[in-house]
Amino acid sequence: MSKSVKVIKIGGKVIEDEQLLDGFLKSFAELDFPKVLIHGGGRTASEISEKLGIEPQMIEGRRKTDEDTLDVVLMVYGGLVNKKIVSILQGYHCNALGITGADGNIIRSIRRPPEPFDLGFVGDIQEVNAPLLKSWIEQDVTPVIAPLTHDREGQMFNTNADSIAGHVAAALGKIMPVELVFCFEKKGVLKDPEDDESYIPTITQAEFPKMKEDGIVSEGMIPKLESAFATLEEGVQQVTIAHHGSLPYLGKKNFEGTIIRL
Amino acid sequence: MSKSVKVIKIGGKVIEDEQLLDGFLKSFAELDFPKVLIHGGGRTASEISEKLGIEPQMIEGRRKTDEDTLDVVLMVYGGLVNKKIVSILQGYHCNALGITGADGNIIRSIRRPPEPFDLGFVGDIQEVNAPLLKSWIEQDVTPVIAPLTHDREGQMFNTNADSIAGHVAAALGKIMPVELVFCFEKKGVLKDPEDDESYIPTITQAEFPKMKEDGIVSEGMIPKLESAFATLEEGVQQVTIAHHGSLPYLGKKNFEGTIIRL
Repeated sequence: MSKSVKVIKIGGKVIEDEQLLDGFLKSFAELDFPKVLIHGGGRTASEISEKLGIEPQMIEGRRKTDEDTLDVVLMVYGGLVNKKIVSILQGYHCNALGITGADGNIIRSIRRPPEPFDLGFVGDIQEVNAPLLKSWIEQDVTPVIAPLTHDREGQMFNTNADSIAGHVAAALGKIMPVELVFCFEKKGVLKDPEDDESYIPTITQAEFPKMKEDGIVSEGMIPKLESAFATLEEGVQQVTIAHHGSLPYLGKKNFEGTIIRL
Repeated sequence: MSKSVKVIKIGGKVIEDEQLLDGFLKSFAELDFPKVLIHGGGRTASEISEKLGIEPQMIEGRRKTDEDTLDVVLMVYGGLVNKKIVSILQGYHCNALGITGADGNIIRSIRRPPEPFDLGFVGDIQEVNAPLLKSWIEQDVTPVIAPLTHDREGQMFNTNADSIAGHVAAALGKIMPVELVFCFEKKGVLKDPEDDESYIPTITQAEFPKMKEDGIVSEGMIPKLESAFATLEEGVQQVTIAHHGSLPYLGKKNFEGTIIRL
């Protein structure tokens, strides 16, 4: 495996489980190539909101980021989760730098249009400051990005972590070799969502339409794969979808997971 | 005034007052020299703790930073306050980078000894990563530092913001010209604590013992002034103590405040 930058996204339950998180971060710190970590928020924000007596506003089954909820995600994603990850990584001698998209003006967004429904302070990414990220990576600093962005006019936004990972990888991919890795609870893209061993080792753009047609990839994975191909078309070398425990095997022969290529 | 780096500390009520904070940050953003901002936490942490049902543990009249309180200060200082400051500064086109001492391993501390009383997770600063701070400043990035540090073994600490300001200024002062500015609610070091107009324009090390003897500087200011002289002895060019509204006049003829020199 070349020394391309790995943009790695971790989300879901790993963030909430102290032991899993520690194990994941230990493997991450030991990876011997330049890297960026994007993390999700987990359910801590909902728990803290509840304790603070903030009533969740639901729009079509999705939580609206109103002003109070934005304060909570600034606290939980930008503070608690981000700084815990940074201090654990520092403990493993990885020189982590925890940021949101506002820091260094790394990710500029615009507020998502209120139609068909107004999700509040949610950002759609417009621009990634890849040169500044690259300069930090070259200083042997590891950016750790919380799922928050800003509009450069003083407003912060709650922002999807998968989307941040894709945009950061694509922007960096224009100025240096980049691979994108999504880590989650499954072994990869599964043929049978119930069977963790049914992961598909590789998916190419040529194979994808037929796989969709034959129903080989499950419904929920289709938008993820489409966005992976879009990222590849922007210049990212490879997209990997794998279990969070697979990090030490990245790029090795005994790696288990799904590798997506053009 | 030379283009030395200004290390500026803001604390107290300004942090808690949206309008005052915005005005201060606007002036800060407009300062035409390289700069670093260190902020305190304000009372938001106590309010959030209360709402979360965390009982304050008091030791000799001081709040102990137990594990729950540390989580709250990570959320409030490292998340809410730090990111609000960063996004406001970005709105004024100052390329702020919000960090704690763990980020980039900028400030390493050790836990304060438990004798005479155990204040919990409170750090005493050991080392500042001045070269990395300097490289950011040279990229036209403005570090904004929350009052939190770490031990590089995975533990974060609540840390006094004045102390961070002094250590950061002293460490940077060894590799580039630095001035240190403390902004607060008073016009400077006052002869009469009740009279804001009684500020002393300059205090030199030679004058200081006599001023102490004559009771010209008030009791509470003595440790602050002693620490200012210590910072000057380490190579910082000048220490200023002034009102938070005086920022636009820094280094100008009509500046009001106390300038401390060797």
